[in-house]
Amino acid sequence: MTTIHHHSVQIYYEDTDHSGVVYHPNFLKYFERAREHVIDSDRLAQLWNEQGLGFAVYKANLTFLDGVRFAEVCDVQTSFELDGKYKTLWHQELWRPNAKKPAVTGEIEMVCMDQQKRLHPLPDSFIEAMLKL
Amino acid sequence: MTTIHHHSVQIYYEDTDHSGVVYHPNFLKYFERAREHVIDSDRLAQLWNEQGLGFAVYKANLTFLDGVRFAEVCDVQTSFELDGKYKTLWHQELWRPNAKKPAVTGEIEMVCMDQQKRLHPLPDSFIEAMLKL
Amino acid sequence: MTTIHHHSVQIYYEDTDHSGVVYHPNFLKYFERAREHVIDSDRLAQLWNEQGLGFAVYKANLTFLDGVRFAEVCDVQTSFELDGKYKTLWHQELWRPNAKKPAVTGEIEMVCMDQQKRLHPLPDSFIEAMLKL
Amino acid sequence: MTTIHHHSVQIYYEDTDHSGVVYHPNFLKYFERAREHVIDSDRLAQLWNEQGLGFAVYKANLTFLDGVRFAEVCDVQTSFELDGKYKTLWHQELWRPNAKKPAVTGEIEMVCMDQQKRLHPLPDSFIEAMLKL
Repeated sequence: MTTIHHHSVQIYYEDTDHSGVVYHPNFLKYFERAREHVIDSDRLAQLWNEQGLGFAVYKANLTFLDGVRFAEVCDVQTSFELDGKYKTLWHQELWRPNAKKPAVTGEIEMVCMDQQKRLHPLPDSFIEAMLKL
Repeated sequence: MTTIHHHSVQIYYEDTDHSGVVYHPNFLKYFERAREHVIDSDRLAQLWNEQGLGFAVYKANLTFLDGVRFAEVCDVQTSFELDGKYKTLWHQELWRPNAKKPAVTGEIEMVCMDQQKRLHPLPDSFIEAMLKL
Repeated sequence: MTTIHHHSVQIYYEDTDHSGVVYHPNFLKYFERAREHVIDSDRLAQLWNEQGLGFAVYKANLTFLDGVRFAEVCDVQTSFELDGKYKTLWHQELWRPNAKKPAVTGEIEMVCMDQQKRLHPLPDSFIEAMLKL
Repeated sequence: MTTIHHHSVQIYYEDTDHSGVVYHPNFLKYFERAREHVIDSDRLAQLWNEQGLGFAVYKANLTFLDGVRFAEVCDVQTSFELDGKYKTLWHQELWRPNAKKPAVTGEIEMVCMDQQKRLHPLPDSFIEAMLKL
């Protein structure tokens, strides 16, 4: 049974392009914001500042099913699983208000890296914290 | 006596640059988000979709007093006044948590325009709504 | 035999984040810039303004193999094929200077849409122009 | 007599918003790109990596006179002067193709800072290089 975490994203001018809907790379931003809230931004800042560790996106598979418009308040739904010593897998969806299907879906693989951009095992404290979510 | 409106902005990866702090043009984004919340995003969407009217920044004077870091949750403080038939003036400040002075201040002039980018008087309904804030 | 189109991207402050390398959603921007140069931006503007047609990304599969740093001038390599009446498929890679492998690869599917965001067959003039590239 | 440096900026999807023109904070990006080309990005990277020094925008006064549209290739015109031990002053304008007046003008003050975000005198080597431009 997987927990789904919800994060709310309001669409501002900065998010749209001249076609009238959200510019597609921005969904990767919303998905990252949502992951940061799941992991906890303060824990991320601490890992970076104290242990020199961060997370990098290794793979991102996105499907864009619907356009999203200015002023809409959307719901980003996020679930994840740990995959071995280095990797976390994330399933994410962005839903427009009152929608029957997601507007955008993403499968994201993240790895843990040090500040020299070398792969690093997920810290035990991180794994423990994530297993409690 | 001027009302100060508060809007909260969390700093994500997307907001920073490789110098370690928020990339300076992004403060114009936060100031715009805050203005959209003061005016009300739904009213803005309605004005645009039904009357073909929007607001454009005519002048922006910014002063950058302090760097802002990842994961900080900042307070954008906004006040405004109407200035003639076409213009609104905005004073905005971004405050880091527990700060003694603002990190960034801005004086913004906005004008009302139609979709052909011609100056248009502020709609009466807009003026009325703003005077109630 | 597939033509590879080259597009040069310089990494500015705006492209990086506080981890010191390019913020990952930005690679979708560079890939789009490169596709716009292949298709021709003026043709895109004309299609949009005169026929009300545009292109939307339907799927994007990205793999991030290496970090990219401030001031690097990278080479985006793009090839494409037409796939049926509605779709174009793009293979894109971003190469750092003097690299032995790409830093980021992408498989992008684009569809043609009208301004109501409904699927629309690729215009014949567009297909003809693309087949000449 | 002041040298005017030219830098070309093409407007992509990413630059526009749903009002149909360039999103206003992006002009600060173009102005920064142009300054980086005047100063030389490799020199900036070297200053940062070897001496831990960078430049921060202290003040930015912008005036927005005209909207800028998708696919336009604009000319950013930049001139500067040194102002005391810490500061450089920049006058920048963005011109649309065949325009009779600039679309956006900016007066930018930059200061030199170390990685702890403390004010630092402009390095002599930097001043010398700038005086030759």
